[in-house]
Amino acid sequence: MIDINSFGVLGGDKRQIALAESIASDGYTVYAFGFENVEFSRDVKKAGLEETTAHCENLILPLPVTTNGLHLNAPYCQEKVELNDSFAELMRGKQVYGGMIGKLIQTSEVWDSIDIYDYYNREEFTIHNAVPAAEGAIEIAMREYPGTINGSKCLVVGFGRIGKVLAWMLRGIGAAVTVSARKHADIAWIEAYGYTSVFTDNICEKEQYDVIFNTVPAMIFNRRILSKMHAKPLIIDLASQPGGVDFESAENLGIKAVHALSLPGKVAPKAAGEIIKTTIYNIMEE
Amino acid sequence: MIDINSFGVLGGDKRQIALAESIASDGYTVYAFGFENVEFSRDVKKAGLEETTAHCENLILPLPVTTNGLHLNAPYCQEKVELNDSFAELMRGKQVYGGMIGKLIQTSEVWDSIDIYDYYNREEFTIHNAVPAAEGAIEIAMREYPGTINGSKCLVVGFGRIGKVLAWMLRGIGAAVTVSARKHADIAWIEAYGYTSVFTDNICEKEQYDVIFNTVPAMIFNRRILSKMHAKPLIIDLASQPGGVDFESAENLGIKAVHALSLPGKVAPKAAGEIIKTTIYNIMEE
Amino acid sequence: MIDINSFGVLGGDKRQIALAESIASDGYTVYAFGFENVEFSRDVKKAGLEETTAHCENLILPLPVTTNGLHLNAPYCQEKVELNDSFAELMRGKQVYGGMIGKLIQTSEVWDSIDIYDYYNREEFTIHNAVPAAEGAIEIAMREYPGTINGSKCLVVGFGRIGKVLAWMLRGIGAAVTVSARKHADIAWIEAYGYTSVFTDNICEKEQYDVIFNTVPAMIFNRRILSKMHAKPLIIDLASQPGGVDFESAENLGIKAVHALSLPGKVAPKAAGEIIKTTIYNIMEE
Amino acid sequence: MIDINSFGVLGGDKRQIALAESIASDGYTVYAFGFENVEFSRDVKKAGLEETTAHCENLILPLPVTTNGLHLNAPYCQEKVELNDSFAELMRGKQVYGGMIGKLIQTSEVWDSIDIYDYYNREEFTIHNAVPAAEGAIEIAMREYPGTINGSKCLVVGFGRIGKVLAWMLRGIGAAVTVSARKHADIAWIEAYGYTSVFTDNICEKEQYDVIFNTVPAMIFNRRILSKMHAKPLIIDLASQPGGVDFESAENLGIKAVHALSLPGKVAPKAAGEIIKTTIYNIMEE
Repeated sequence: MIDINSFGVLGGDKRQIALAESIASDGYTVYAFGFENVEFSRDVKKAGLEETTAHCENLILPLPVTTNGLHLNAPYCQEKVELNDSFAELMRGKQVYGGMIGKLIQTSEVWDSIDIYDYYNREEFTIHNAVPAAEGAIEIAMREYPGTINGSKCLVVGFGRIGKVLAWMLRGIGAAVTVSARKHADIAWIEAYGYTSVFTDNICEKEQYDVIFNTVPAMIFNRRILSKMHAKPLIIDLASQPGGVDFESAENLGIKAVHALSLPGKVAPKAAGEIIKTTIYNIMEE
Repeated sequence: MIDINSFGVLGGDKRQIALAESIASDGYTVYAFGFENVEFSRDVKKAGLEETTAHCENLILPLPVTTNGLHLNAPYCQEKVELNDSFAELMRGKQVYGGMIGKLIQTSEVWDSIDIYDYYNREEFTIHNAVPAAEGAIEIAMREYPGTINGSKCLVVGFGRIGKVLAWMLRGIGAAVTVSARKHADIAWIEAYGYTSVFTDNICEKEQYDVIFNTVPAMIFNRRILSKMHAKPLIIDLASQPGGVDFESAENLGIKAVHALSLPGKVAPKAAGEIIKTTIYNIMEE
Repeated sequence: MIDINSFGVLGGDKRQIALAESIASDGYTVYAFGFENVEFSRDVKKAGLEETTAHCENLILPLPVTTNGLHLNAPYCQEKVELNDSFAELMRGKQVYGGMIGKLIQTSEVWDSIDIYDYYNREEFTIHNAVPAAEGAIEIAMREYPGTINGSKCLVVGFGRIGKVLAWMLRGIGAAVTVSARKHADIAWIEAYGYTSVFTDNICEKEQYDVIFNTVPAMIFNRRILSKMHAKPLIIDLASQPGGVDFESAENLGIKAVHALSLPGKVAPKAAGEIIKTTIYNIMEE
Repeated sequence: MIDINSFGVLGGDKRQIALAESIASDGYTVYAFGFENVEFSRDVKKAGLEETTAHCENLILPLPVTTNGLHLNAPYCQEKVELNDSFAELMRGKQVYGGMIGKLIQTSEVWDSIDIYDYYNREEFTIHNAVPAAEGAIEIAMREYPGTINGSKCLVVGFGRIGKVLAWMLRGIGAAVTVSARKHADIAWIEAYGYTSVFTDNICEKEQYDVIFNTVPAMIFNRRILSKMHAKPLIIDLASQPGGVDFESAENLGIKAVHALSLPGKVAPKAAGEIIKTTIYNIMEE
């Protein structure tokens, strides 16, 4: 018997564990597959793949669904789960939710006839995720920088989602914050919020910083720019691979640079799980 | 002789006066027409219309250029300046800047062959202007609300430019801030910044507020919503005409509602003048 | 019959009116004397002096109780109420609360045998009052300064109660805030909160400001200091009489200076009334 | 020859290393004893104990000067340095600065005739140190709490120096902050700054929190209070030994509690070193 208010959580990391618990605490029936050695509260029922998909109306795949395009991303699962026609068939007639589903839907033509939503593409997901990303960056800065962030001179490169939240938090703990952007409109926002503004092309020309956070996925901190940094700042690069820092040159110049990737899942899995849940609920309501 | 670094300021209110002074203090030659009884510093030269346009390469018309479509908006000018072919001819070959130029360019076909830019349409202009608008709204709230804004419960309706700045400032002085929006993405931002969020359709269903700021140009506060407000809040409506409040119903219900229009020019003419200047400089650099 | 949960509110300005309403809304019986033409809600009973004192266990005199030492401070009262033995006798056996009671108790020896508390001396009263004082100062600054406070350079002289709240609010709306103090410990606090610090003896030596707020009751802004201010700032003096600014010299030098006194009662009578109420409740609980 | 502008840095941890570098970068001559394997910049001269004390006018002992009352606190020193008459004699005629010098001056009567100052007792030292302490606490919270601090419900127990800075920073990153205190005046401050207030005796009666920071050196979190915490918060105890949490009961109840001691030196040695330097400079100027 299918329970319309039931959720199957399939694979994934601590975010999926938190997600399963959080949905269960909302009063829904939750089955979880792929967590053999994980201890859940009583409200989450561990089950096999077939049992989970048979019982549940809503199926939640992890973020990312797969890393290699062949198997389900399920680090807590003892066996490898192949992504193929028979896996896809189990999802037929269900509402399926997954994060970064591009590689998944190439694994079987069955997916063409399945209702599947990519919560990773939802704007509110990306915005909410900026919060744990920014906090994770600040945690790294606090750990690696030998002074206090309070009173330090920080540069945030880029005024997109993470840049906005990061600049706001850094000022909130008392840093002197400069934010760089390329567009006049972003510069206007930066000034309205009371930060010091600089065009990205002009960073580090005059000013020196204690900590620099890069959020722009482009090679901003090349050897030329790095060599202008007499004060040897700490650089935290939040841009996805390959990042925005020439890490080799940084090392040669004695500048510590940290490439901080996938922060939400690492530093705040509970928050990251709740963000996925909220996004899925929003999709269901529409 | 034409001076390429010269600016003619034509008509307008205190913003244009501040603009003229500010450009002059940057070292440029400034002529001002339409301010017979205004005392400028030595660096701004008062002149007639022909003299001003003849000498200056850059001509700055006011915001708005005209209110009635017939005459230049020039409250400090003793005579009426008609907008016609001969007025337009004076601008030929110049760089002309104006705010809300729609009605102006209908006054003469000559405008088709003149380089004229509407700074009012620039995004950075609108963003920068959100700052004096928000401050003006707070000034009104401080004056009209018999308690302190610190510690009060404020609702900001809409999370556009003014809503963003206003919410941020209100929290900055210690108000408990709720912000409403219609889109999930905006709700996500509202929560990321630590405000209480509510969908605009659901405002005042449960919560009561001390001060409400409306920034949405739609009839949000109709009789039905107003009648739910048991706590008789102060309402400050920042939406342009006709506004977002049923003012008659508000009055009948004993709710004080203020329609606050054109705040930047009124409360912070110097800031508003500098915003116009910055925008014009940006246009010139491009 | 005496009601132990009854409050008599005697004289005073809008703060006392707000106080009466607020106590009544907490469910207590409230009599008010000295407000002939004031419209109260149903829960506050207007009464004569004898009726009020006869019925009520707790009597609340205004702030200040008297200005001239002869009559009750009662601007809404049609007759003058003399402070003498018979007035004091009406208070016998009651709990009496008043603000700045020094002159009152000199009007009759009867006061020696009456339980009277000066809420004006309570530390939490002074702290709470710093909030409407600071907001009032910001309201004046917003009204008088032709730019926006956001983005302006503000100096707060003194890091006592009002200085602390004021600096915090100014930064909260986006000003660049410098705070001056005399003691190393205060300088340490100023820096911890992320403001720029300066010793009061050194203000205006190098830096220029757009708006200056003085909270120190000493002649800080004498002619010598004023003449160093090339940028002609707006000065708002919050120090009690005679204030901390040489107003005559300021005028001669073209510097606008505003002496802002008794702000809480003027700008936020409702808040000021609630602060008195909270303080009296605290005294009663002890 | 004695150089009046010379500083000898004797023993200590990373704070003293940062201190030595920072004084040297101000242009003073700096000798450092007790750091055999530490690499200093060129401006700091490593030297033996006699050489350092002979050359330098100002001698800086570590914080604490000694832990056991017998030897200098010098973790980077290869030999143990005994605190006795001959050690004290080396300091004669110098300006000596140390942190927590109580046990030191009991090691020799020679100290009675030496100018020694305890920078640890200076108020500005304690205030400045609240900043790295608060940041260290937040770093721990970010690391240990599986959600984000942004959006979490935090309780700060105590509104002393660390409590003030901590509450301010927590709100600055978007937490919902409640602060507890015992005195009405502190409650007034808590409310003025816009936090939720609660008397320390009443904490956790109704409200539940995600993260609790204790700054009060008293057994606040005994078994009785801990057993009321249904939400199993993370508790970070900043109170010095023995702390303010019954750690055993916490563990039995499944509540994670971290005793975070000596944070400034651990999380921000550079900042902590600069705070010592600033304090010593202040003493020297007086």
